[in-house]
Amino acid sequence: MHFGKPRAERADAVRNREHLLRTARQMIAEEGVDKVTMDGLAERACLGKGTVFRRFGTRAGIFRALLDADERAFQEHAMSGPPPLGPGADPVERLIAYGRARVDFLTEHHAIVRACFDRSRPMIMGDPSMTQLHIRVLLREAGSVPNLDGVAVQLTAALEAPLLLYLSRPQREAESPDRDETIAFLGDAWQTLIERVMR
Amino acid sequence: MHFGKPRAERADAVRNREHLLRTARQMIAEEGVDKVTMDGLAERACLGKGTVFRRFGTRAGIFRALLDADERAFQEHAMSGPPPLGPGADPVERLIAYGRARVDFLTEHHAIVRACFDRSRPMIMGDPSMTQLHIRVLLREAGSVPNLDGVAVQLTAALEAPLLLYLSRPQREAESPDRDETIAFLGDAWQTLIERVMR
Repeated sequence: MHFGKPRAERADAVRNREHLLRTARQMIAEEGVDKVTMDGLAERACLGKGTVFRRFGTRAGIFRALLDADERAFQEHAMSGPPPLGPGADPVERLIAYGRARVDFLTEHHAIVRACFDRSRPMIMGDPSMTQLHIRVLLREAGSVPNLDGVAVQLTAALEAPLLLYLSRPQREAESPDRDETIAFLGDAWQTLIERVMR
Repeated sequence: MHFGKPRAERADAVRNREHLLRTARQMIAEEGVDKVTMDGLAERACLGKGTVFRRFGTRAGIFRALLDADERAFQEHAMSGPPPLGPGADPVERLIAYGRARVDFLTEHHAIVRACFDRSRPMIMGDPSMTQLHIRVLLREAGSVPNLDGVAVQLTAALEAPLLLYLSRPQREAESPDRDETIAFLGDAWQTLIERVMR
């Protein structure tokens, strides 16, 4: 049997996808998120609109793919980067560092996160399960917590939901609180929560 | 000046609204949430479609109005009903009772909550500020918590977001976990969280 052809096509697909994501990042860096449309991306990447459509489905799909890629890098960093985020530090310290890094990450990606919200889909992007899994592992490492699974679900929601809700609101500069204030507000509260839960 | 006419109209509007909500509740009790449409409600209530449209805007708006009314009753109960939910019990006990009652309330309203999700609006219904306010008041009463405002925001998210996320998913009976299990899972985890935060 000859598997060469389909494999070659798949390699093409991967290359196209990577090329499209790279191009989208360039466009965002140069012109901002608003300029990235399905048509604009196809044109800039010198690929057909059909290819962009097949890869991402919708405009929001482009931003979800970008965020997914960055999420993976973020989670790798948390799982195997330097302490206190990565292994080597006390699990309570790691939980606190994770929450602060997560608030930073989502705030830094605010324009992309906002562009991920697709009016035809329910809110709450992607899959919070990586965060949930990480929190669960560290909670268990830090000591015995009753109802561990439920507590991990609720702490994940405590960390991510306020930020996602804030980021999913229409951007009105005049109303939106200062970014550094938001980071400190949620990061400090997270630290209190974890210190209290684990003391 | 003569204010009689507008006031009379407002009284009519209130009457119509109450009549429509009562009729919607009857329809839900008899035939389930799916049968309540803008047209169906107008017909059953013997009012014009325009009236239903002016009151609620969309079909989801009918369910949000129903939920709002029940929310108000729920919050009144929490603020002035019998202990341990209402005043008289220790604030930590009240926080735990509030969380358990809230999980019950949202789960009991699952069909209405689900019908509130409107594909043209961002998720997370209504205004979680009543729950947030209540949690904040009880946290402060229970003792000194650093970063009180942020912790209240995050505990509100811990309590409500997992349930709303679960309830906003398409209803697939085969997949959905047992209702009593969900109530116990989230209620028990909430109790752990509060006991730990306040110990």
